[in-house]
Order: sequence, then structure tokens, then C-alpha cells
Amino acid sequence: MIVCKFGGTSVASAEQIRKVVDIVTSDKDRKIVVVSAPGKRFSEDTKVTDLLIRLANKALANENTEIELSDVVERFRSIAQDLGMDGTIADEIELDLRDRLAKDKEDTLLYMDKLKAAGEDNNAKMIASYFQFIGMEAQYVSPKEGGLLVSDRPERVRALPEGDVLLAKLRDLPGIIVFPGFFGYTNDGTIRTFNRGGSDITGSIIAAATEADLYENFTDVDSVFAANPTIIENPVAIDKMTYREMRELAYAGFSVFHDEALIPAFRKSIPVSIKNTNNPDAPGTLIVRERDYNEQQVIGIAADSGFTTIYVDKYLMNLEIGFGRRLLQIFEEEEISYEHTPSGIDNLSIIIRTRYLPEDKEQKIVERIHKELEPDAVIVEHDYSMIVLVGEGMQYTTGLAARAASAIARTGSNIDMINQGSSEVSLVFGVKKQDETKILKELYKEFFVESFVQL
Amino acid sequence: MIVCKFGGTSVASAEQIRKVVDIVTSDKDRKIVVVSAPGKRFSEDTKVTDLLIRLANKALANENTEIELSDVVERFRSIAQDLGMDGTIADEIELDLRDRLAKDKEDTLLYMDKLKAAGEDNNAKMIASYFQFIGMEAQYVSPKEGGLLVSDRPERVRALPEGDVLLAKLRDLPGIIVFPGFFGYTNDGTIRTFNRGGSDITGSIIAAATEADLYENFTDVDSVFAANPTIIENPVAIDKMTYREMRELAYAGFSVFHDEALIPAFRKSIPVSIKNTNNPDAPGTLIVRERDYNEQQVIGIAADSGFTTIYVDKYLMNLEIGFGRRLLQIFEEEEISYEHTPSGIDNLSIIIRTRYLPEDKEQKIVERIHKELEPDAVIVEHDYSMIVLVGEGMQYTTGLAARAASAIARTGSNIDMINQGSSEVSLVFGVKKQDETKILKELYKEFFVESFVQL
Repeated sequence: MIVCKFGGTSVASAEQIRKVVDIVTSDKDRKIVVVSAPGKRFSEDTKVTDLLIRLANKALANENTEIELSDVVERFRSIAQDLGMDGTIADEIELDLRDRLAKDKEDTLLYMDKLKAAGEDNNAKMIASYFQFIGMEAQYVSPKEGGLLVSDRPERVRALPEGDVLLAKLRDLPGIIVFPGFFGYTNDGTIRTFNRGGSDITGSIIAAATEADLYENFTDVDSVFAANPTIIENPVAIDKMTYREMRELAYAGFSVFHDEALIPAFRKSIPVSIKNTNNPDAPGTLIVRERDYNEQQVIGIAADSGFTTIYVDKYLMNLEIGFGRRLLQIFEEEEISYEHTPSGIDNLSIIIRTRYLPEDKEQKIVERIHKELEPDAVIVEHDYSMIVLVGEGMQYTTGLAARAASAIARTGSNIDMINQGSSEVSLVFGVKKQDETKILKELYKEFFVESFVQL
Repeated sequence: MIVCKFGGTSVASAEQIRKVVDIVTSDKDRKIVVVSAPGKRFSEDTKVTDLLIRLANKALANENTEIELSDVVERFRSIAQDLGMDGTIADEIELDLRDRLAKDKEDTLLYMDKLKAAGEDNNAKMIASYFQFIGMEAQYVSPKEGGLLVSDRPERVRALPEGDVLLAKLRDLPGIIVFPGFFGYTNDGTIRTFNRGGSDITGSIIAAATEADLYENFTDVDSVFAANPTIIENPVAIDKMTYREMRELAYAGFSVFHDEALIPAFRKSIPVSIKNTNNPDAPGTLIVRERDYNEQQVIGIAADSGFTTIYVDKYLMNLEIGFGRRLLQIFEEEEISYEHTPSGIDNLSIIIRTRYLPEDKEQKIVERIHKELEPDAVIVEHDYSMIVLVGEGMQYTTGLAARAASAIARTGSNIDMINQGSSEVSLVFGVKKQDETKILKELYKEFFVESFVQL
């Protein structure tokens, strides 16, 4: 049994939804279909989710919402019409939206969630109707009845494992199940949405709970590539990679698949396939627990800019038990999460994503470090990039670090930081932002261009 | 004005003490002489400090101490005799020791400190007497009158800055000042000793307080070498290095100069010279604040075995604010200090000196990590070595990491960990202990053997 999820561009229009139906019907194992809200049909288009956010903001400001409401309804109506269906579904969607708009606004975040979730929810209903319309056995299942239980506020939204028993029963329902992505219900029936891109999470949760043989994630690219295609021309496609490799690449800037969405599949060892709705015959990328790393030691190279380094130096730091912990505690108390903490004998660097470090926080943290830890020096540097080399072969192959460092040296760039832990699948180089592109190109040549590969 | 300190082997016999006198008198700037207790005269010999520990242990066990007492006294008596002096000083030393032995034993650590300090204290008195005996103006100054104030128990012993005003006046005393190393007095007059090798600390504190032009540290080697002479045949001598470089090398296994002893000199920018009592004309090694790193980017290579890695892996670790802090806190609460904490996205490795991690502690820490942090995996690995490449040029020179990693790759060894922070003067490679020697040799060739040096 296969759980397949279709992203926003895959369900943006009638034409796209017909492709979805073709894909689903072409393999009888495809049983559960998780859908996003209609996305962009062309690059200047607006996603339904963004229309809904606009609508919710108007409502929260107690302004007239008729225009914004109509924008959403008409978007669905035109899709239904293009699919050859009558206006019933659009009328139902309008009623549903008016119902949501009339709800209590006291908790603005929950109100917003309720409206945002309407995109996926109504799209699932519409697509289920379309399956029925063309004569297939299919049904919409709500996350409430389906069992997608999520945690209460103020906790960060996450799926509760007690929902799994109910979700597992989706397998036994007759016909195609169309399930909306992106949101779940708390125990008391309140809607909460996942992060953006959260339909990937829904699909993964259901694939894990139903113990699917495969979780297919349909999007608009043929596969995951070994490097960013906007920097490297025609990078090689990745046929197969491990969860850990995908996670490292996603984290370091690959946006194909949502980070957090891998967890449920990973925990139950469900293989994940990234496929293209517009080219379903392309092999795609398969994400699995293990692969033969001898075939390809390095699977991809990611680069991510926008890091800040806070370097703290104190003579005999290592003799002060608790120094590192107290330093990290300052970041925790200021609610700043950090990426790496490479250390020397007398120094520790904290590497942070600059966008998570507002200027006033940076100043406050530096002041606190000075006051509470009495260091010899605190140096803040901006505009760092992290270049991440990812591959399961990393920890077993002699000379990979040498090849990577030599490739970087060939560009004339300096390496400010290197981080490689034991048992790791990645090697991280901290470099100046201005050197990022040329380093990425040279590393790609070193590890992926045949004529260059040497050892 | 020069403060010079003579280590244990430099004052182990009459012959050695005559060399000390020759050195001191050959430069009129040499004013303050800090001395250790008599050390080993030959490799099977016993240091006076060890004789004193034996004596203290007997006394603490309330056993007869006459034999052990006599061992210490006779050691001093024979030196004085060989110097041509009469028995007065040895008799005084015996009285002093009997007086110390009779003190209150309630606090065994302080009792031990009192007896251990007798080695340096009496040696300083004897050497001052010898200066006078040969007709020079000289005096013994006690750390109590001199102003070497230290912190009270239970705090770790450290010098208190309020003593500096008094210590600064040592400059103005007439003649040569002979000052015992290794111990100071608390505000209420109690003796406390520094760590072993603590005479280096005394010399450094006095050099800083008196704002000496130079702090000479006389020992039994011509200089600091670029690598361990027991592994690398005739390694090159280091003429000049920075405090930071010395600190990194000392920490990573170079035993020439006591780590902690650099601090006072470093804070006041007093140059430190490492010289050989047995070959005072050799240039030695000069430790300064800054050097021209273009002349030599890498100054030395150290290797230190006996590390344990505790690797902790948890999916989406980075989303849990406080994960790193809570992990480090477990180590802090168990009073285990760690060396490095290299991190991946979903994992953090804690690198510890194995000798600081008793087996039961290791087990307890692993259990606590499992229980308190619910990780996906905790893997403990022993027998790691850290290879440390040290040099001020490290952070400014392109390609050094590549050269080092390539040299390691040539040995066929795998690199388990790499740690290089920004603004650092060292590059740390974690490798298997069995590969340590061959890596050290290959790195030495790469960076120090002319015909091999390439870029």
C-alpha cells in the first residue's frame, strides 16, 4: 500500500488534478492521497493559503471580507468548473469558509490556523468529489475522524502518537482515501496547522501509522539533485539516499522535502520517494534507511549563507567546569538556537543563523557573556556561509576531508571553521559568504564531475 | 630586570646549583631567582618532594617518621656539604621539618601541603645561604613576607591579585632575591601549594607583579621542539612562539612548560624564555605575544592519546532549544570536564580525556543521557587520539587544512573528527590511537622537512 502526497503545484489547476488522478489510478497500491491547498499555476500567481491568510487578517481587523472571501471561493469554483463538475462543491466551500470566519477570534493564532487549514481541507473534499465524479470509489476523510491528533497550545504543534491506532484503520476503508495535509485536531477538537510545507508531515505521519510500503511525495522536480541547480548547471540527480543524508541536505538549504516530515517515515523505516507530478515516469529519488555507500561516498553538497559566529576566548577556559554549559545557557535563556559549537582549548565559537539573531539580542548576549563569564575576548562575525558535504561514505572513506579541503584551497579561499564529528555523514566548512559560490562549484567538480574525480 | 626560575633537575645537586649561580651572576639583570625543590640527579633518583610526601603519609598514619625525615635532611645536608658549606643549614632544615610535622593534622590536605612546601622553602633558604657564602649580596624571601597570597580552601588554589603590590616591591630589595616556588599563603597564614610543576607558576606571578623585562624558565632541555623527540628524531627547535601556541602545545602533550604558569606572564605581556641550565648558551625558546606568522605558519605538532568519545544522536536535535546545554549539564553535574563538542545537525559528540572518566561515571552518564534526553543513539568509543597542529598562521593561510588532511590520507588512516574554530591557532584531528604515530610522522614531514614542504 502506498501513501502519496501531492504538493501545491500538483493540485493548482484542473489540468494538474487530472495528472494526479492519472497517477493514482495507474497503480492500484496507491490508496491514500494527501493533498495540499492549490498552489501557484504560474510564477506570479497567489497560493490559496496566501489568499486565506489575507482573508483571516481582514477578518481579524474586523473589516469587510467579501472580496477576499470571493477570491478563495472563485479559485476553487474555476477548478471545479474546469474539471467539468457543477457548482455544488464551490457553494459548500463558501459555506464552510463563512462558518470558519464566524468563529471566535479571541485566540488570533488559532483563528488563523482555522482559516489556513481551509485550503487543504476543502481541496481534499473537492478532489474526493472529483474521484467520485469520474466513477471511482473514493472518500474524503477529515483529520478529526481520521485520527490526526496534535498537541495543544502553547506547545509547538506536533502529532500525538495516540492518534496512530485510528489512522492505521485508513488502510481498511474502501476505495481511495483523500486526506487534507497541513493540519490536525487537538484532543478538544481545535484545528492546529503544522509549519509551512506541513502537508509533507501529514503524509509521513499517515504512511508511518498505516505502515505503508512506500510514501510517495509528488512535487514539481524530477528528483533531488546533488547540488543547487541555480548554481551548478545540470547537477546529477540523486537516485537513492538515506534519511540522514536527506536530512543533512534539507537542513543545509535543499528545499525539496520538509525536514521535519522525514521523522515519522524514518522511525518506521518507510521508504520515501520524491517524484514529479509533471513527469511521473522519471525515476525520482528514493530515501531509505541504508544504502551501499561504496557506490557513492558523497551524495550531495549544500551551501547555506547567513550565519553569524560568536567567538569566546578565555585563557584556561577548559579548567572552568561548566563554562561551556553556562555559555550555552545564555543562548537558551535568550531563546536563540545555535547550529555548531566548535571549540579550541581556550575558546568556543557559537554559530547561529543570522536570521534567528536579532541585533538587540546579539548585543544582549554579548553583554551577558562579558558580565557572566568574564572572557578575554568576544568577537562577533557576520556573513559566514556553511558548506556541507553529505554522504554516508564520509566516515569510512580515507581522504575525503583531504580532497574537500584541497578543492577549497584551489579556489584560494580560506577555511574559517571545520566541523566533523565521529560517526557523522557530513563535513561542514565555515567560509566567508563571498567565497561560497566558487567553493561550491569546485567541490562539485571534485566529487561529481567524472574527469575530475581522483583518488 | 629578569625573573629566573630553576626547575628540580637544575637544583638537584651541588654541581647543578653552581651552574645556577654562574647563570645568575653572568647577567646583572637576573635579580629574582625562583627555585624548585631538589629533583632527580639520575633517572632512578627520588625527588625531594616525593620524599616529603612519603614523610607526610607516615606522619598522617601516626607511624614513626625518623627514617623518612632523615632521608630528606640528609639529601639537603649532602648538597650543602658538596657546596663546601657547614652543617648549619641542614640542622635548620631538620628543625623546620620537625616543626611542620608537629602541626595539627586535622585537615590532611593542608597538612600535606605544609610538608610538600618544605622542599622549595628550604631549598630557597639553602641557595640564598650559598650566594652569601660565596660573598654575594642575596636573601631568601618567604612567600608570606613577599606577598604571594593565595585563595582559601575549598576553592582551587590560585594567586590573589591583592598580593601583587607587595610582590612588586621585590624589585627594590638589595641584591639577589631567592624565592621558593610552588606555594603561597592564604590571608590567615595557611600554606597551600599549586599543582605539581607549580614553581613555574610562582615565577610567572612574580615576573608579572614586578613587571620584569623577561621571565626565564630554566629546565633541562635546550628548547621546545616542534614535535615529540621520542617519536620524531631530532625535531626542529622552536625559536619563538606565541603564548597561545605554547598553551595549545602544552595542553596537547608538550610537558616543557606548565600550562597554568603562562597566564600571569601572558596577562602582563612578559616574554618567557625556556632555557637549559646545562647549556645556557643555547638560544632556547622565546614565548611572546605576537610573532610574524609568515615566517612559519605551523609551529608544532602535538599528539595526545587516551580520549573517549560519547556520541549522541537525536533526530531533529537542533529544534530542541537547550539540548546541548542539558547534555553538557549532565557532565557538569557528574563533574567530568570535556575537551571538545563537535556537532552535526542531529548529533553532538563529547570528547573527554579517558583518565578523567571512571568507568562507573561513564555508565552513569550514558544512563542519564538515555533517560533525560531520550536520544536515538548514544555510542561510546575509547582509544581516540587527538593530533593537534598548532600555528598562528593557521587562520590566515589558505590550504593548511588541505595539506594536513592530505598528509593523514597518505598514511591510509581515517579521520574521525576534525575541529577548527574561527580565529583559532590550532587544527584538531581525532584519529584512532593505533594510527597516531604514523600520522604524527607524516605531518612532521609535511610541515617541517624541507624537501617535503610543498604548497
